[in-house]
Formats: sequence, structure tokens, C-alpha cells
Amino acid sequence: MKAGYIQFTPQLNQVENNIKRLHKYIDDQINPDQVDLLVLPELALTGYSYPDKQSLGKVSSEKYNKLTVDTARKIAAQINGMVVIGYPEYTEDGFYNSSLLVASDKTIGKYRKTHLFGFESEVYLPGNLGFNVFETRLGKIGMMICFDWFFPEAARTLALKGAQLIAHPTNLVMPYCQRAMFARSLENQVYTISANRCGRDNWKGVLVFSGESIIYIPKGEVLSKAPVTGEHHDFIEIDLQKATNKNINSVNHIFNDRRPEFYF
Amino acid sequence: MKAGYIQFTPQLNQVENNIKRLHKYIDDQINPDQVDLLVLPELALTGYSYPDKQSLGKVSSEKYNKLTVDTARKIAAQINGMVVIGYPEYTEDGFYNSSLLVASDKTIGKYRKTHLFGFESEVYLPGNLGFNVFETRLGKIGMMICFDWFFPEAARTLALKGAQLIAHPTNLVMPYCQRAMFARSLENQVYTISANRCGRDNWKGVLVFSGESIIYIPKGEVLSKAPVTGEHHDFIEIDLQKATNKNINSVNHIFNDRRPEFYF
Repeated sequence: MKAGYIQFTPQLNQVENNIKRLHKYIDDQINPDQVDLLVLPELALTGYSYPDKQSLGKVSSEKYNKLTVDTARKIAAQINGMVVIGYPEYTEDGFYNSSLLVASDKTIGKYRKTHLFGFESEVYLPGNLGFNVFETRLGKIGMMICFDWFFPEAARTLALKGAQLIAHPTNLVMPYCQRAMFARSLENQVYTISANRCGRDNWKGVLVFSGESIIYIPKGEVLSKAPVTGEHHDFIEIDLQKATNKNINSVNHIFNDRRPEFYF
Repeated sequence: MKAGYIQFTPQLNQVENNIKRLHKYIDDQINPDQVDLLVLPELALTGYSYPDKQSLGKVSSEKYNKLTVDTARKIAAQINGMVVIGYPEYTEDGFYNSSLLVASDKTIGKYRKTHLFGFESEVYLPGNLGFNVFETRLGKIGMMICFDWFFPEAARTLALKGAQLIAHPTNLVMPYCQRAMFARSLENQVYTISANRCGRDNWKGVLVFSGESIIYIPKGEVLSKAPVTGEHHDFIEIDLQKATNKNINSVNHIFNDRRPEFYF
């Protein structure tokens, strides 16, 4: 199967226009036959910098939840595949920084960001769903969002639960993640697709996102890296069996070799 | 304080000569005032490739345990500091791939390699001491050995137990570790010193060690990297307070932000 990302640049407060631009990008630039799994950034349709619940409430509601699902399903239908998309989820309890795994006819899985970054905790509730793996016709897919990368336990938990591929929508501002995902893919022998945004939000000065969306294969090799700036996409051939075999040589099996009795 | 490594090249079966060469290297090349903590490689005095217990038994016994301790203490006295050294530990139950943290007048800590690599499990018992942190006058020091790096739980456990610096004797043959230690230092906000060996053992063909001993600071920056080949040493100024503060910004504390209820 072929999987990859679109490094997209949503504009704050312009959800409908962002959706229009995303559809146009896909129509113009993507061959639907060349992609089975498409990972989009964190908060892909709204932009990132909503400093308080009031401002976030203008782009997060039941209506916008539905709009996100509809948009993702439409794209999934277009590529005859699946889409991972980040969005600010509205619930009666409050907002979550969430992502969905969507097919054309259904929502397969939802994830709520477990480790909130910076000011996000003023706006979002911490994720309460844990790290779950979804068995799909394409393979076993797990999701984590942006800052979750910093905590090795996130990718580890997904991998131990069977994830062959970690879909990782991001809105990265720190310079570390793209480099550190090397360790996440290698130590878990999984594929990772970090779909970052680029561009900037004019918020508390200017917040600049770091682009360089990146795909690692289980051996830690980079198979795709987007530029720092500019919208971009890439899809690569993925053999999920490579993420199933946890033997790294004739002796060592990286999961069976674990010794949890000595771990915190 | 100043801490660092000697990238040394022991010769198989020539323990006494290796000790002589190591002392000469230190006498000739190292200013004792410039080092407080010296990390030596895994199996620093014996070499690596003993394919069975019989051959290992020729360099691992009570006599050699004592020789290792005496050598490390002598060096510790010379630098008026502490030494971490890897050695094949002899016990009545069998051999361990171990390391010691030694001062001039005492052994402060011992570690036994938890995750054995490749053929090692035919020769060594898996470590049974867990990951422990030793409070010393220099700071809180933890040890892990070589392949332990692959398991994020190793460095994580040491850091959660308070380690400010992870001393990491290695005999690396795979090309990944030096790069992946970026993640270990960053995700735990600790100093890491990977003291690798270089050179080769003539064993089952030729086993080539990868050199590039490396020191990372808590922010993931490389402060020292040795060449691939050739003996080498480096010592850098270390401020362990930087490994005590686990805040990476005004909001996020990488330990307090953990959510173990969702981790495997």
C-alpha cells in the first residue's frame, strides 16, 4: 500500500476556505491511485493558535465536528482509501485536540492528544482515550499527535498494542521532533508518518511551524522529508510486514527482549 | 565538573597488556585536572568476542574481577575522581556483562547489562540488578551498557530514578546508537556519555566496532564526538543542574506531564 502526508497550511479562522483549498490541492496535485492512507496535520482545517476557549469555540462545535468528518470522508472516497486528520473536537465537557481515522463510509478510530503542549492545556482537555490501535483493511494503525512524540511511552504503547504504522499529525514549532522520530521508528520497528504544517500564525508575535513532514521506515531510514516551507505531499510504498517482524537479528526480538520487571 | 570518555581498543585475551596500554594512554595524554568522571567502554580491558564460556573464563575470574577493580581505582586516584568501566563479571552463578562505578577508595555502584545482544546470551546471564542511580559527590549517576540504548525504558527508568548523567559503556557494531542517543538525552533531559570502543576483533570473520563515542547534553546537543577509528578521549564541562530541571518551557515538565495510566 502507499501512505504519506500532505504538509498543509491552514489559515486561522478560515475553516471553509481551508477546506476548499485542501480539496483543490488534492484535485490538482494528487493522483488518487497513488495513495491509500493520507495523513494530514494536527488541527488541519482550523489552524493552531486559538489562545482561549472563546476563540476556539468559533471553529469547534458540533457543526465543525461534522464538517471535519465530512471533509475527511470525501477525501477518503476520492482516494478510495483512508484519511487521518487532526481537528479541535467539540464535546459537552470541553474541547480535545483530536484526530480521526476515517474511511469513505465510516469513522474507524478517534484519538485525543494525551500530552498537551504549552498553552494548549488552557484550551483543551487532556486526552482520555489512551493509545489505541485500529485494525483496518490497510493494516494496524495507531495515532498520536504532535508533542506526544516527546514521550517514548506513546509510540511504545502503540507498538506494543500492535501498531504497524503510527500516523502522527503535528503542528511542530520546536526543532527536535523530525530528528527524534528516528528513534521512535527504530526502537519500535514501526513506520511513522509525521504530517506537519508549515507557515505561521500571527499570535503572540508570530508562531512559525517547522514543516519537514517526515516518514521513517522500521529500520529508522527516512523515506520522505518535506521542505521547511511550502505545502508539499509525498506517498511511499509501505510494506507493513516489515513492521510486524520485531527480530532485529537472529537472536534479538525487541519486544520479547524487554524486561518490564526492571522498568518504571 | 568535567566528564568524558576514553575510546579505547582492547586486544582479545591480552588483559594485562591492555591495562598497561590504558595506563600509558592516561599517563601520556590526559591531564588529571581536566577530568572528574571518566567513562570507559564495555568490556574495556578484555575485548568483546569470547564466543563461549570456556574462552571467556580465561579472562573472567575472581582474579580478573579484582584486577578490574584495582585498575579502575588506580585511575580514579590518578584523576582524583570516578571511573566507570565495563568488564565480564565472574560470579558463582555464571558471567555477567557488567560495569562498575568506582572511586579511588571504594566501589560505588555495579550494573549488570539487562538487555543482552546477539550471542552474548550464550555466554552471559541477563542482568538481575535493574537500573539503579548512585548518589555521588559528583552527582546522581546511572549506568546502562551498549544494547540497553535500544530500549527506551532503560534510560527512562534511570532518569525517573533521578539520574542526571547516564554513563554508557558500549562495544557498538550497529550504526544506530550514536544517533539515537539524541532521543535518550532529550526525552529524559539528562547527560549521556556513550564510551565506545573502536578497532576490530577477529571472530567469526571480523567484527568491526564503530567508534564515535559521543556525549549529549540534556537539550540533545552533541558536545563531543570521537572519530570512527582510533583511540580518542574528550572531557567536557558538565552542569548537572541542567539535568535536574525537567521543565522544557514555562508549562511543560516532562516527568509531571507523563500519563502512566495510558502506558503499557
